[in-house]
Amino acid sequence: MTEHRAPRRRGRPRGGTDSRARIIAAAVDEFGERGYDGSTIRSIAGRAGVDPALVHHYFGTKADLFAEAVGMPLRPDADVPAILAGPRDEVGERLVRYILEAFEDPDVRRRGVMLMRTAVASKLTTPLLAGFISRELIGRIARALDVPDAELRASLVASQIAGLLLTRYVLRFSALAEASIDELVERIGPTVQRYLFD
Amino acid sequence: MTEHRAPRRRGRPRGGTDSRARIIAAAVDEFGERGYDGSTIRSIAGRAGVDPALVHHYFGTKADLFAEAVGMPLRPDADVPAILAGPRDEVGERLVRYILEAFEDPDVRRRGVMLMRTAVASKLTTPLLAGFISRELIGRIARALDVPDAELRASLVASQIAGLLLTRYVLRFSALAEASIDELVERIGPTVQRYLFD
Repeated sequence: MTEHRAPRRRGRPRGGTDSRARIIAAAVDEFGERGYDGSTIRSIAGRAGVDPALVHHYFGTKADLFAEAVGMPLRPDADVPAILAGPRDEVGERLVRYILEAFEDPDVRRRGVMLMRTAVASKLTTPLLAGFISRELIGRIARALDVPDAELRASLVASQIAGLLLTRYVLRFSALAEASIDELVERIGPTVQRYLFD
Repeated sequence: MTEHRAPRRRGRPRGGTDSRARIIAAAVDEFGERGYDGSTIRSIAGRAGVDPALVHHYFGTKADLFAEAVGMPLRPDADVPAILAGPRDEVGERLVRYILEAFEDPDVRRRGVMLMRTAVASKLTTPLLAGFISRELIGRIARALDVPDAELRASLVASQIAGLLLTRYVLRFSALAEASIDELVERIGPTVQRYLFD
């Protein structure tokens, strides 16, 4: 996780950094014990001994706080809806390109791989990331699609993207690790397109 | 890993079970230290203090011994080439159906999930399964296809299958976990078909 230092603000001269750190620590514990869906900004604030408004003030939504707490290198929950809102016949390609270009950044890649390893490794941590992805990513894509089988369509996209990240960056199969972004966008983009719209 | 007990054989009245166990233990150590490609039947036999012929006799090929040592629930390296050899316009569907039907068996599923968790979890174990899949599965599919970009095509198939197994059985995204085999074959089969042949 990157280090963030809260800027000193007028009217809040003391304790900002401490409060942030306490909220993050409380979020890690709360998400770990209750899962993503079971945790609330209110329950995390209670655990940290701060007002819920302060949690919102520092971190925004529950999704924002989760991303901060687990060191998420990307915010697909925020970025993907914008991709879906663009020209429809290129959504698949744009989605694959967005992920691959983001993973060109060594820091994104390092943290992404660490997060995948952690999430898959144990029965305790798996539901946490799965809960976030289901709620914030698959759920949003599904609502944007607005068709009866939208959740299945969005989940199929997630299966291909997860498999691409796993095989290119974790298992490092050589043909995938060495392929250019353009090549992968050309091959995998139509899959995502078909899962979403055909 | 399932328990196998070597049947008593004429002419080999003593030590069969012990030798099998010693070979498996040696294989686990050797694969763990040298990876899949770096290990040989000869080096494993040397570590176990037995003749290489005995290793072949009990376990067959290096791929067979690896599958036994890590408790692989399936032998895609053996089964997939047969699927590829069947009618070409249904290869994608048959491949997806083969995997999903195998995972209906609770024992296959349990061991498959455990193997995925172990393989993804650590930098030490990841290259081991990746080495096996690259050599024995992607390599075989690529040779069967016999086109210049065959390895990339086979690796793309592996990315979708790996992602499907991860999201349906490990992350357990509900729309995928609850979908029928027929539904998934219909949606994902054409992806595999396109990666292989289009």
